[in-house]
Amino acid sequence: MENASGRNDDQQIRELVTTWMSATKGGDLDALLALIAEDAVFLTPGQKPMSKDDFASLQKAQWAKGLPGFDATSTIQEIKVLGDWAFMWTKLAVVVTPQDGAPIERAGHTLTILQKRNGKWLLARDANLLAPKSS
Amino acid sequence: MENASGRNDDQQIRELVTTWMSATKGGDLDALLALIAEDAVFLTPGQKPMSKDDFASLQKAQWAKGLPGFDATSTIQEIKVLGDWAFMWTKLAVVVTPQDGAPIERAGHTLTILQKRNGKWLLARDANLLAPKSS
Repeated sequence: MENASGRNDDQQIRELVTTWMSATKGGDLDALLALIAEDAVFLTPGQKPMSKDDFASLQKAQWAKGLPGFDATSTIQEIKVLGDWAFMWTKLAVVVTPQDGAPIERAGHTLTILQKRNGKWLLARDANLLAPKSS
Repeated sequence: MENASGRNDDQQIRELVTTWMSATKGGDLDALLALIAEDAVFLTPGQKPMSKDDFASLQKAQWAKGLPGFDATSTIQEIKVLGDWAFMWTKLAVVVTPQDGAPIERAGHTLTILQKRNGKWLLARDANLLAPKSS
């Protein structure tokens, strides 16, 4: 369904992913938080669920020693729009290079629930299945 | 929304979880596969996506040495029904005891997309974030 800007939901969700990656690479926490619903839940292997505030704290901690290098390839495998909700899964590979350390490679998949609020798509529930990349 | 049987969607999805657990415990592959959409995708940390056939093969391999002991506690954290689709996330703890080995404890969360087809809820996309339990 096209909105006033002429972009359909699928395109807007793809733009969210692109903006997410550039905000992460650029260390722009405000831009990142603007993409996240207030009641969002982040799930990762072996960890407690994280709220939006938890996520913000984790990002700040990761950036505290200076912005790491960040190189990511996200390949969207499926987007399914269900009215004002949608789900998406992606194949994701990330290389993070701390200012004071060696590159850390992680790869895997994500499964994400998105919600459209006030005409804007936001990340609502996110399962991040990335694991250290086997070399 | 209630259907002819008087059970609403939320209840039917909870019954799916209960049936899933009992079929897994009982080694009933047919009962398990009856809960899975043909185009289902299973995502797990650090592994390739699995199809329904892949999932069936994995179950058969796990049961080939005799049915392991299986004790699971699934706590549904959220079910959100979106017409003929729904999403759910759970907190899950599993103890599998192979016939020839020590118990293996895993704990974590799942994020699942379900789809109602011909009036029956099926598992459609599943992210399983279980990790070995830290003792």
